[in-house]
Amino acid sequence: MGDPVGIGPEIVAKALSEPGVRQCCRPIIYGNVTRLRAGARSTGATIDFCNARSGGGAHRIDAGIPVVDPNDVPLGTLEWARPTSACGAAMVGFLNAAVDDAMTGRIDAIATAPINKSALQMAGISFPGHTEILAHRTRTQSYAMMLAGERLRVVLTTIHVPIARVPAALTTAGIATVIDLTNHALKFRFGIRTPRIAVAGLNPHAGEMGLFGDEEKRIIQPAIDQAVARGTDASGPHPPDTIFFSASQGVYDAVIAMYHDQGLGPFKMIHFQDGVNTTLGLPFVRTSVDHCTAYEIAGTGTASAQSMAAAIVMAATQAGWQRRHRQHACDRE
Amino acid sequence: MGDPVGIGPEIVAKALSEPGVRQCCRPIIYGNVTRLRAGARSTGATIDFCNARSGGGAHRIDAGIPVVDPNDVPLGTLEWARPTSACGAAMVGFLNAAVDDAMTGRIDAIATAPINKSALQMAGISFPGHTEILAHRTRTQSYAMMLAGERLRVVLTTIHVPIARVPAALTTAGIATVIDLTNHALKFRFGIRTPRIAVAGLNPHAGEMGLFGDEEKRIIQPAIDQAVARGTDASGPHPPDTIFFSASQGVYDAVIAMYHDQGLGPFKMIHFQDGVNTTLGLPFVRTSVDHCTAYEIAGTGTASAQSMAAAIVMAATQAGWQRRHRQHACDRE
Repeated sequence: MGDPVGIGPEIVAKALSEPGVRQCCRPIIYGNVTRLRAGARSTGATIDFCNARSGGGAHRIDAGIPVVDPNDVPLGTLEWARPTSACGAAMVGFLNAAVDDAMTGRIDAIATAPINKSALQMAGISFPGHTEILAHRTRTQSYAMMLAGERLRVVLTTIHVPIARVPAALTTAGIATVIDLTNHALKFRFGIRTPRIAVAGLNPHAGEMGLFGDEEKRIIQPAIDQAVARGTDASGPHPPDTIFFSASQGVYDAVIAMYHDQGLGPFKMIHFQDGVNTTLGLPFVRTSVDHCTAYEIAGTGTASAQSMAAAIVMAATQAGWQRRHRQHACDRE
Repeated sequence: MGDPVGIGPEIVAKALSEPGVRQCCRPIIYGNVTRLRAGARSTGATIDFCNARSGGGAHRIDAGIPVVDPNDVPLGTLEWARPTSACGAAMVGFLNAAVDDAMTGRIDAIATAPINKSALQMAGISFPGHTEILAHRTRTQSYAMMLAGERLRVVLTTIHVPIARVPAALTTAGIATVIDLTNHALKFRFGIRTPRIAVAGLNPHAGEMGLFGDEEKRIIQPAIDQAVARGTDASGPHPPDTIFFSASQGVYDAVIAMYHDQGLGPFKMIHFQDGVNTTLGLPFVRTSVDHCTAYEIAGTGTASAQSMAAAIVMAATQAGWQRRHRQHACDRE
């Protein structure tokens, strides 16, 4: 459910009232019934919720969507867009309970609604965001952020790094790991038998033979060579201004971007509304909305639930592929 | 016509055989009749050409499109995709003759077909490309490259600069000049009365209040403030991953990008085929195709003339707006 006073409760209620979303999965919300009912009211979503003890077991969906609330924090008096320390504690509580259920196999996938950094800080929690909390709690060393849509998938090598520090932040080992994580995810969570992975260069024209920078030759090419040596269909370094278009035309299954805006700029041109953020490398499927808590419209019922709906559907799809692969692995044993 | 052995003669012949392109202007080719006829043959374009002395005066188009060939370089024995020093000399000769006619007002606009750097070097010419030759011959100090399409216009602050050197290459004065050039061009060559100009940040989330870099506050913001103080509708620094999408939705008339791929990556997602490169700051209208000489397909007749056609049409449109403004200025005197 994410932040109790952001648009989270609204977009969760709205997304889960769509038949297509409801039918792709058996939803369990880690959140708070009072806030969710407020979200349903403001958005006009005809949906009800009931308290559940944990994510596992058979829930009677006809009695309402089961809601697991692991916190003993009262949220009844909260106001939209007014974060308190209780909000910060609550959102981490929801997330941790979901992670614990995912780790023990009670649930197959987590789709997260947005949380707010300042509310986390109010509660004395120093993680900058969801992904870092997830990595910490699951003791995951290597992970990467993928932005995925119907026409394009982009994986970032570096994320919140100033442009001046991007060249120094790139390493051959780091890029090789991102290629591996991408290859694995495309195979086992997207059902692509032999994924075709394009790796972008760093510089204009991918350096144009060293004329505009040497990171392509020095850092990126060796990572591609390593991946190819391990049997991965990886190519590049490609010119960063055209490779995303080529991939969107179906030539590649994913593009590895060297930095935040290299990948997100092109991605958002075609997937601004329906892009899904998914974390590669975690022991379970995790997707997320591609936007923030949007306090400026929280409680007004106007927030679009398109990204939340897409995140839930993609979580279910990835979980389906993962199950099929695990089943297949069991069959062979 | 550009490079005599690249796809230039083919795409010029093909573009000018389209009725829509022919009707928007009175075309004059600075090139070579023999090569253009070869281009028409390979592409199947039903069009003929005739030699003309200069770009001015009344040409009888029914006798063929007038071709000004300022060179005494024989090009009859050339082969497609085999550049010689004669090619390098010829392409600069075509360009210089067109520039001279534009400077004296014999022609209103120049649309350039691609030239080849290595052919220039064979002819002992050290300019890296068209734009630098144009700036030198017209003694233009301040100029900028705009990529323009129906849905998005992008102007680059830096072009062929390695990412590691981009932050140091940005200056407040340089950005302010690019904003001014853009504002002027949108008014007088695109017919937009009060252009809305968005300026992108350099870093992820435009620095997120200094968390991911300080160039926004230190370098970019002062340039925007200067432009606003001069009455320009300039805003920013905007997050680089979303501003191009917003502009493509009609919220802004142009986006100023801080570096090559920040602007070109998003632009090419929606204008890969029909993008036009246009140079701001020259004393005349200049557009260009958005691709290279494509030796690998030169002479096969397969090259797309879409970008060449778009460049000619945009040159004519810009020239039309410029005439209207000049006429209007005369009327007021």
